[in-house]
Amino acid sequence: MTNPMSIEAAKGNRWHDLLRARRERVWNGLRDTGCDAGLVYSNAEHPAPFRYLTDYRPPLGDMWGVLTENGAMSCVLTFHWGLDEARSRSGISEWFGEFDPVPRVSRLLGEASPGAVGVIGFDRVPAASLARIESALGSVSLRASDELSLTLRRRKTSEELARLSEAASITERAIEASIPTIRPGTTEREIAARLAYEIRRQGGDLAFPPMALAGGLNPVIFRPPTVDPLRDGMCVMIDVGAECGGYQADIARTFVLGRPSAELRRAFDAVRNAHESILASARPGVPCRALHIAGAEVLQRAGYDVCHRMGHGVGLATSFEWPSLDTEDAPLEEGMTLAIEPAVYEKEVGSVKLEDMIHITSSGYSFLSRGPRSLGRIEEGHVVYERGT
Amino acid sequence: MTNPMSIEAAKGNRWHDLLRARRERVWNGLRDTGCDAGLVYSNAEHPAPFRYLTDYRPPLGDMWGVLTENGAMSCVLTFHWGLDEARSRSGISEWFGEFDPVPRVSRLLGEASPGAVGVIGFDRVPAASLARIESALGSVSLRASDELSLTLRRRKTSEELARLSEAASITERAIEASIPTIRPGTTEREIAARLAYEIRRQGGDLAFPPMALAGGLNPVIFRPPTVDPLRDGMCVMIDVGAECGGYQADIARTFVLGRPSAELRRAFDAVRNAHESILASARPGVPCRALHIAGAEVLQRAGYDVCHRMGHGVGLATSFEWPSLDTEDAPLEEGMTLAIEPAVYEKEVGSVKLEDMIHITSSGYSFLSRGPRSLGRIEEGHVVYERGT
Repeated sequence: MTNPMSIEAAKGNRWHDLLRARRERVWNGLRDTGCDAGLVYSNAEHPAPFRYLTDYRPPLGDMWGVLTENGAMSCVLTFHWGLDEARSRSGISEWFGEFDPVPRVSRLLGEASPGAVGVIGFDRVPAASLARIESALGSVSLRASDELSLTLRRRKTSEELARLSEAASITERAIEASIPTIRPGTTEREIAARLAYEIRRQGGDLAFPPMALAGGLNPVIFRPPTVDPLRDGMCVMIDVGAECGGYQADIARTFVLGRPSAELRRAFDAVRNAHESILASARPGVPCRALHIAGAEVLQRAGYDVCHRMGHGVGLATSFEWPSLDTEDAPLEEGMTLAIEPAVYEKEVGSVKLEDMIHITSSGYSFLSRGPRSLGRIEEGHVVYERGT
Repeated sequence: MTNPMSIEAAKGNRWHDLLRARRERVWNGLRDTGCDAGLVYSNAEHPAPFRYLTDYRPPLGDMWGVLTENGAMSCVLTFHWGLDEARSRSGISEWFGEFDPVPRVSRLLGEASPGAVGVIGFDRVPAASLARIESALGSVSLRASDELSLTLRRRKTSEELARLSEAASITERAIEASIPTIRPGTTEREIAARLAYEIRRQGGDLAFPPMALAGGLNPVIFRPPTVDPLRDGMCVMIDVGAECGGYQADIARTFVLGRPSAELRRAFDAVRNAHESILASARPGVPCRALHIAGAEVLQRAGYDVCHRMGHGVGLATSFEWPSLDTEDAPLEEGMTLAIEPAVYEKEVGSVKLEDMIHITSSGYSFLSRGPRSLGRIEEGHVVYERGT
């Protein structure tokens, strides 16, 4: 059966090797910190710690893994759906599906008779589950070991960049295919539904619910799509991301139905100038936060409020991915991947955002999203990308 | 702006009253167990405890609430997106959005100077967050109080039944609208994408990723949709659910492209007989598990394996909603709502499931999903529902 998963699995011994290397690296890190077993936990909204080591995420439920000698791993999910797919993607043979995974997890950990267990994904482990595991294991010490995989995840390999790039391509093709729905008379709901449809048709999942924000009556960062008919002159901002093999895109484009007002041009120019200023700072060695400051200053000088951070990491997550550009002082390194997203939210104008994905190279950056990075003027179902003033 | 949320808010003082009554009831329950404050926690995959008290769920991130005197509530989300919508849906004025909600949650709880805090949604509270809250509060005792709201949630009010019924209608209309995609040459992926599209167009969210399972080569409970072209004679099972105002549908229908084989007819008849046998047991006073046994026996007598439980509750969740029919001995009560889902997975035949939503009435049950509950034979883009043998 030409299941896309099977195709992936066929070329995928490359990924099996990669996953094994990740598990070994995490295992070595655990050993270095005095642990003799690892416990991996993830939930559906934060699947990354588990997915990083298995390349798998179930459709519903929690993910648990037990790491032993040399990174051998056994996995327990809440449901027994999809265990064959899990085996084929992960290259791990031991998978269980149990509505209450905790007893099995405790047993698997107990078999390793550990003295100290490093917990990957500790940040999200439910207190109730942890208490049950602790009581089953007796005197074992459980230690937060999130840093181990978080640090490894920061710099992407070529295989990861390929998936991020594919996620960006799917997203941009979905935006293009949805342009006919951006016209007077349709609704935010119709645009958002179409974006999701086009992503799924291409085999992508949704990194987050697609957004279409139209008009200047109530310009916000997010709202569920409304059913108000779009009207000529309205600004329509789209923020959408596909997920491809776990790697998530995050891209925003701004359109206008017909001729943009002078105020919209001014807002878009400020956003694009902020975007360019952020990019001009994007290279190894620069503190993450310098990118936020570079963009925020441009917006403020143009007289606009800074309503949110100028960006964040992208990888196995988007909004939750390290770094948050407004707070992180660590320097950028080659292989890091970011979404940069300067935006202006102005009454009477609209939600105006320009979001792209970049990859930090040895000397600067390259784009994962292709653009165009101009205001898209929609006239009779076609889009013309404006050059800025 | 005729935001669907605003419309809801306008008629919604009914819901505000309902929510206030829920919060008061939970508050009284907390007082009865010796608590003088409440802490509510939910995450994106398990939003129910928080949603039950606020009628709100953010697009991303955690949900925290602090309950004080008479059920007054303050809420903290991970992101500051959508706080206006949160206020208007919940009738609660105090909302915060903070990337790390824990310090604010600790402060709000601390202001109540509680001796004992009952935690609603304790089951999912991350151990790391709980430890930080405990250390901020000093000697306060935090107690699992999930039962308080879980018990209240079991029997649905007419307002909840209306939302469940609307979720079922959206789901069934989406299935109808997707029938043209069930034909030789299309793929599971196209059908699944279309189902999701049709749900979103109607203003629904997805209760879970829609499934389309075709053919008898690898009949399973779940897999990501493949891109294999559908062929004449194939069985195609669809399992899909819309979410409407937080309430989730779960419906499955089975189709065949052209003429069903004798084996498929036999499997479908067994599934439908199991379905009827489950329904015949559905009335107040009957232990939940009796419904599982009734359906499972029919399948086994017909010579099929029982691959999963015969159903589960529906409400603010589906697969995770109480009761799990295979394990719960408590008796059914008027106002409870269930999805019943007997199924057969047979090589050479396919994934054959019939899933409906019911509501337990004073004397029996009534359907929340309308049907048809027959094998759908698809011929030239139209569907004909077979009567069973």
